[in-house]
Amino acid sequence: MTQAGGIEIVRTVADLRARVGSWRAAGLSVGLVPTMGALHDGHLSLVRQSVGETKRTCATLFINPKQFNPNEDLAAYPRDEAGDVAKLKSAGADLLFAPEVAEMYPPGAATQISVPGIGDILEGEYRAGFFTGVATIVAKLLLQALPDAAFFGEKDYQQLQVIKRMTADLDIPVRICGAPTIREADGLAMSSRNAYLSAQERAIAPTLYAAIRSLAEAVRGGADPASQAAFAAEKLLSAGFSKVDYVTVRNAETLEPVAANDEPARVLAAATLGRARLIDNIAV
Amino acid sequence: MTQAGGIEIVRTVADLRARVGSWRAAGLSVGLVPTMGALHDGHLSLVRQSVGETKRTCATLFINPKQFNPNEDLAAYPRDEAGDVAKLKSAGADLLFAPEVAEMYPPGAATQISVPGIGDILEGEYRAGFFTGVATIVAKLLLQALPDAAFFGEKDYQQLQVIKRMTADLDIPVRICGAPTIREADGLAMSSRNAYLSAQERAIAPTLYAAIRSLAEAVRGGADPASQAAFAAEKLLSAGFSKVDYVTVRNAETLEPVAANDEPARVLAAATLGRARLIDNIAV
Repeated sequence: MTQAGGIEIVRTVADLRARVGSWRAAGLSVGLVPTMGALHDGHLSLVRQSVGETKRTCATLFINPKQFNPNEDLAAYPRDEAGDVAKLKSAGADLLFAPEVAEMYPPGAATQISVPGIGDILEGEYRAGFFTGVATIVAKLLLQALPDAAFFGEKDYQQLQVIKRMTADLDIPVRICGAPTIREADGLAMSSRNAYLSAQERAIAPTLYAAIRSLAEAVRGGADPASQAAFAAEKLLSAGFSKVDYVTVRNAETLEPVAANDEPARVLAAATLGRARLIDNIAV
Repeated sequence: MTQAGGIEIVRTVADLRARVGSWRAAGLSVGLVPTMGALHDGHLSLVRQSVGETKRTCATLFINPKQFNPNEDLAAYPRDEAGDVAKLKSAGADLLFAPEVAEMYPPGAATQISVPGIGDILEGEYRAGFFTGVATIVAKLLLQALPDAAFFGEKDYQQLQVIKRMTADLDIPVRICGAPTIREADGLAMSSRNAYLSAQERAIAPTLYAAIRSLAEAVRGGADPASQAAFAAEKLLSAGFSKVDYVTVRNAETLEPVAANDEPARVLAAATLGRARLIDNIAV
């Protein structure tokens, strides 16, 4: 359906299903890489992982209004479809699904998917409605394309766990694959929102990764999670972050506070630097 | 996979998918008929409709605890699997999926599907959480089986509209089919909950259908919906119903109050008679 080295762009669910259906009919496995565009090497690593694990890869580009709340940066969110298409092509994607808002939310659309518990804490606490917006749009994309596998970055670690929970709970027949965070040379996790940083803020930003890495090492060495997390938050404020929403050590799957020393744990953090709210995480 | 005249029973999602998958691989279309058991001719008419429209029919039997609230009749809800199996067999079903609660809601299950608007009014107002429970379990059943079509009775008219809305909104690739209400000779809509009626109450119960039929006829003839609905509610209380939750004329799709005379409309009613809360509806 697509030519060698080419990438086809579709705008409607019907066209998406026709393309994916033709691949299925030919016995080809399909990978899906949902994105909001403004692609960086983190996204492209997901595309390459999908290309390596499945026969055909479909990326999606949809800036989902339902996962922004009125105080957030929907209007300002970076957009560059032409640039994104070139990057997807170079990474080996076969298809881009880039629908308009009205294609995803036609008049009358009302249904919401929520994940109480893991969707209410951390990011869910600071971004009202965020994970309901994420769970709903990801379910829609999965059910529109019905891929064999879908790929999400560990950069948005809580999002990945919410999506795994939602997909399992609703019996959506797709494998959810997480992929490691891709970082700049100085450790800053790649993010479309890094574009909001001034040169001065950009120089400060790697403190976030340094702080959570130190925290993870300290906890691994037996230090008390709560006092070490407080220390990490102080470091961020001293470095120039204006607000720390959380720095915390959690169960790696449920993201509940860690109870036992031997459970798999994850450090998660969110803090504001200039106009950007940055998040990062690392395994303990 | 099943023998002529036979019906196979499966208890796990894996077995359900294996059976349906083998039908799909053989190019056979599949119909799904979700039920909570205690089957009557209304359910069997859905099975027969599915048998007529698809090559293989799977019924499901699951008394979904999430659609009962603490004040409702979960523990008392009628159960008769052996009787149900015999009826399904006679109606031509090929497969029964009858899972335990732990198969449908394993530990950690949290995800909920809600349909704000149509899911909050009428039954949603009188039965807190009911349509969230319904939408979530129906989505699960549809995604477990991935049938071509699924069949629901118009007896639960609002439920049918909620399911249509949810299925469209989430892009679940299945056709939702409604089927006419099956009634006793005296007009009472068949319902598993009719079993709660005493002989005396059973004699009163057909008043519900008589009242909404008269209301629909009056509105069709140009009478004012609100005053006619109030008159119908009075008739129910006079006949012996203890409480009328609503008798109302609504838009046939959105179930919002009717605005224009020319829009498709539906009369819906819910009222309590003895231990039973009865609902019914009819087209205007």
